[in-house]
Amino acid sequence: MTPGDESDLGRPPAGWRRRAYEVIFESETPAGRAFDKFIVAAILVSVAVVVADSVQEWSSRNRRLFDAAEWFFTILFTVEYIARVVSVEKPWRYVRSFYGIVDLLSVLPTYLAILFPETHALIDVRVLRLLRVFRIFRLTQYVEEYQMLGEALAASRRKILVFLSVVLMVVLVLGTLLYVVEGPEHGFKNIPTSVYWAVTTITTVGFGDITPKTDVGRFIASVMMLIGWGTLAVPTGIVTAEMTARRGIGVFRSRAGRCDKCGVGGHQADARFCRNCGASLPEPAGAE
Amino acid sequence: MTPGDESDLGRPPAGWRRRAYEVIFESETPAGRAFDKFIVAAILVSVAVVVADSVQEWSSRNRRLFDAAEWFFTILFTVEYIARVVSVEKPWRYVRSFYGIVDLLSVLPTYLAILFPETHALIDVRVLRLLRVFRIFRLTQYVEEYQMLGEALAASRRKILVFLSVVLMVVLVLGTLLYVVEGPEHGFKNIPTSVYWAVTTITTVGFGDITPKTDVGRFIASVMMLIGWGTLAVPTGIVTAEMTARRGIGVFRSRAGRCDKCGVGGHQADARFCRNCGASLPEPAGAE
Amino acid sequence: MTPGDESDLGRPPAGWRRRAYEVIFESETPAGRAFDKFIVAAILVSVAVVVADSVQEWSSRNRRLFDAAEWFFTILFTVEYIARVVSVEKPWRYVRSFYGIVDLLSVLPTYLAILFPETHALIDVRVLRLLRVFRIFRLTQYVEEYQMLGEALAASRRKILVFLSVVLMVVLVLGTLLYVVEGPEHGFKNIPTSVYWAVTTITTVGFGDITPKTDVGRFIASVMMLIGWGTLAVPTGIVTAEMTARRGIGVFRSRAGRCDKCGVGGHQADARFCRNCGASLPEPAGAE
Amino acid sequence: MTPGDESDLGRPPAGWRRRAYEVIFESETPAGRAFDKFIVAAILVSVAVVVADSVQEWSSRNRRLFDAAEWFFTILFTVEYIARVVSVEKPWRYVRSFYGIVDLLSVLPTYLAILFPETHALIDVRVLRLLRVFRIFRLTQYVEEYQMLGEALAASRRKILVFLSVVLMVVLVLGTLLYVVEGPEHGFKNIPTSVYWAVTTITTVGFGDITPKTDVGRFIASVMMLIGWGTLAVPTGIVTAEMTARRGIGVFRSRAGRCDKCGVGGHQADARFCRNCGASLPEPAGAE
Repeated sequence: MTPGDESDLGRPPAGWRRRAYEVIFESETPAGRAFDKFIVAAILVSVAVVVADSVQEWSSRNRRLFDAAEWFFTILFTVEYIARVVSVEKPWRYVRSFYGIVDLLSVLPTYLAILFPETHALIDVRVLRLLRVFRIFRLTQYVEEYQMLGEALAASRRKILVFLSVVLMVVLVLGTLLYVVEGPEHGFKNIPTSVYWAVTTITTVGFGDITPKTDVGRFIASVMMLIGWGTLAVPTGIVTAEMTARRGIGVFRSRAGRCDKCGVGGHQADARFCRNCGASLPEPAGAE
Repeated sequence: MTPGDESDLGRPPAGWRRRAYEVIFESETPAGRAFDKFIVAAILVSVAVVVADSVQEWSSRNRRLFDAAEWFFTILFTVEYIARVVSVEKPWRYVRSFYGIVDLLSVLPTYLAILFPETHALIDVRVLRLLRVFRIFRLTQYVEEYQMLGEALAASRRKILVFLSVVLMVVLVLGTLLYVVEGPEHGFKNIPTSVYWAVTTITTVGFGDITPKTDVGRFIASVMMLIGWGTLAVPTGIVTAEMTARRGIGVFRSRAGRCDKCGVGGHQADARFCRNCGASLPEPAGAE
Repeated sequence: MTPGDESDLGRPPAGWRRRAYEVIFESETPAGRAFDKFIVAAILVSVAVVVADSVQEWSSRNRRLFDAAEWFFTILFTVEYIARVVSVEKPWRYVRSFYGIVDLLSVLPTYLAILFPETHALIDVRVLRLLRVFRIFRLTQYVEEYQMLGEALAASRRKILVFLSVVLMVVLVLGTLLYVVEGPEHGFKNIPTSVYWAVTTITTVGFGDITPKTDVGRFIASVMMLIGWGTLAVPTGIVTAEMTARRGIGVFRSRAGRCDKCGVGGHQADARFCRNCGASLPEPAGAE
Repeated sequence: MTPGDESDLGRPPAGWRRRAYEVIFESETPAGRAFDKFIVAAILVSVAVVVADSVQEWSSRNRRLFDAAEWFFTILFTVEYIARVVSVEKPWRYVRSFYGIVDLLSVLPTYLAILFPETHALIDVRVLRLLRVFRIFRLTQYVEEYQMLGEALAASRRKILVFLSVVLMVVLVLGTLLYVVEGPEHGFKNIPTSVYWAVTTITTVGFGDITPKTDVGRFIASVMMLIGWGTLAVPTGIVTAEMTARRGIGVFRSRAGRCDKCGVGGHQADARFCRNCGASLPEPAGAE
């Protein structure tokens, strides 16, 4: 979910494309800032329209208004998408980037809805475009927090993957077990359904649309719940350990905390000498 | 939820307002303490009355008693509110403070109930006034724990906000997806309802009043549950890392806490000798 | 839930009471060990009888057998209780201790069942007597872990109490809000019921026996779920921070790690000098 | 769930058994790698067949195809199992190992299904054989993460056991309490069922198939939920504390890692100079 950086799409050297790039992708100029704010407002209104459109009482009364609004925003965002493509040096990189895909998905469903009417609600994937907000409003501090979260998750990625694959195997085996024990007459009508049930159980969601009825099934379910409850500790432990470690080296984390000689950062809070080259470290900016 | 400090509302210099202030806002004098205890008792009884009033069997039998009690407490707290307003130097600051708003909300619903009868139960917001208890009974230690919690949450505020906004976007997109996949015939009658369902799923609450019925819907729901389960690690990680750091550091965090002889820092809060070289440690700058 | 220590109940100096004490309360002698094992077996069998008795199909067929077994174990444990009371120096202290209360509750329901038949199932509170197992089988290591858990919880007691009281207030206010918004026609029939619902929601249990039906109610419920989800981080953070801190000072925790001069323990893992008196610390028993 | 190491099953010194061992148990040779990949593909396809077979619409149409596939894979894995047994020096150790049992359970249900038709779905326990994937594809890094997880869990094993046994006692007592309070007419038809309900409540799963209906029952249930919610912190705290400690310590934990000049220990794993005095650190005893 880490939205990609958009600074490497290639800034055109000069001409109208350069000006378009500055307005569309950057927010240093007044025009760029106005454009960004306009787009944010348009996204919010268009998502509100989609949500309101799904409410039967409202949509049946204002059919025409909703249709007009949907086409207005779709054409607006389509024009914006084309403008983004033509104003970068490496359009293909933009198209394949996280935001490029989100921008495309924000307009496609309306066109697809001509063929498959029920899909048009999917255009509210455009709400993901708001992730750009962090950049637009120069919420640098927020972005830092954000990156810190992203880094902690990224650093735990492999651990989480291994954990998830083991969970999936366990869920498949336990789901099958319940399918055999309870059978279709108690709602466990096939293995995919039983696996769905096993996931609701082990994640402690517990919808209750399918529940074991036999004593054996309930015993196995109880064991599963206790396992799931305890296992929840694992991803939490992974992320927390990562974050605690990151926070523990907090003081020297900023650029000022880097060693002046060899450039290594991430020293412990009470470090006075670089752990890499032994040079004296700069004093921290002030005791917090 | 951090209740504001009430010491900056302006203590009148002398006269009856000063005496009223000492009784109402402070608890140093016997009168002040008696007043505080009386108010706490009144809050508890009045909340009990509201709760009991909502139980059909009791309220129909004792209609008059409940009505009398409600008006008695409402008038009592109204008088108290007016007394609080007139006895501080900066009444406006009090009115806009956390407790000022809670105190007002504690009496308003009874008056509103003359116009909108069903709202009168809302007066049990007055239970929040009990937050003052921590101050009233001089539970200084408790307040310290409380502030520590508040600080840890406040320090994680930005991280939590960023996290929450991303969760909200994800929930909106996934809710819409299920609305498209399942449709109104399976209970996902519009996008707000689907988003409500997505929230119950991703937070692992899982009421089960709305559940996916199609295989595709159940597959997406399973993925959501696993995401929600793993994501729960994030706020926990944030708060835990913050708390671990706070607990581990203690008094000697600043550079002044380093040992003069060997220079080691990061001593425990109650250390008097360096754990590394045994030299006497400098006194902490002031007991926090 | 921390079971009390039973070593301060007063060991009789000599005579038959001393011998009884050694058999009943201690497990140093062969007789004492045999007695303990017999009691553990009796507890397990008697609990199994109670559980089996509650299953309609079995109990109706073996009514007499179950009744006989229940009275047999009740009389056995009653005799044991009396023996425990008479064989300690301070019987009153035993009666009021954690185990004294549990031992009494293990026999009372059978007698009460003569007056109130349905209460007899409560005698399986006697399963709590198994907590003594940790001591009986000299699972010293297990007990240490256990005490460590207990200490971490005890150290966080105040923080958890403050947290819980705030949660209770929030739950009361939110439950009332839903009662006003949804009303008795959607299952929120009175404030106690609404508070029960609010607890199921905020703890992410989500039974689904009562669920909001209106859009406003669902919106408030969604906010509550997100709050509850995030708030779960708080008790976890409290306990984890406590445990991390305790584990961090792990190496020197055993008695050998105490300072020989002043007796202070709990030094940091890399400490070489006592933080309290500056004396040199003994070497750790071996690098783990 | 930690899959055992398979390197101690005894590698035959020479001959056809040595070659068979190299192909079947190792993946150093091209033939060994091809064999491993073939088996992984066979497992995936066979599990997919079992899952698809459970879906009524598909299985009734392709009865013969599914039966043929099931027997094909069962015979294939049976031959593989026999080959594994005969090609190791210590066949008995293999048979009793984690993978030996999984390999056997992967074929047994098909044979058993001749006698008990409904059990055949259990053969998808063969998905557990995929745990070998980590070794097969030389995902050494992944395996390391995996072992780290396993070690953290193993180190917390005793603490978790103690915790679990206390939880089980509490669940039994509380389940009985609800059985007495609510009784069979509200779904709590016997103690095992009530204990099942207590587990769903305390683990915050909350299916909602059984729920308290009386006010007293709901009050007790609310207390249980709050307990369960808070208690969730305990396993999380245990695992997190273990993981934080492991992550924070690294190579230099032992005394040998102390700085020779100032004596400070606890350096980061990649430190080459003392963070306190800047002196060069001794080399770690061996890169783990």
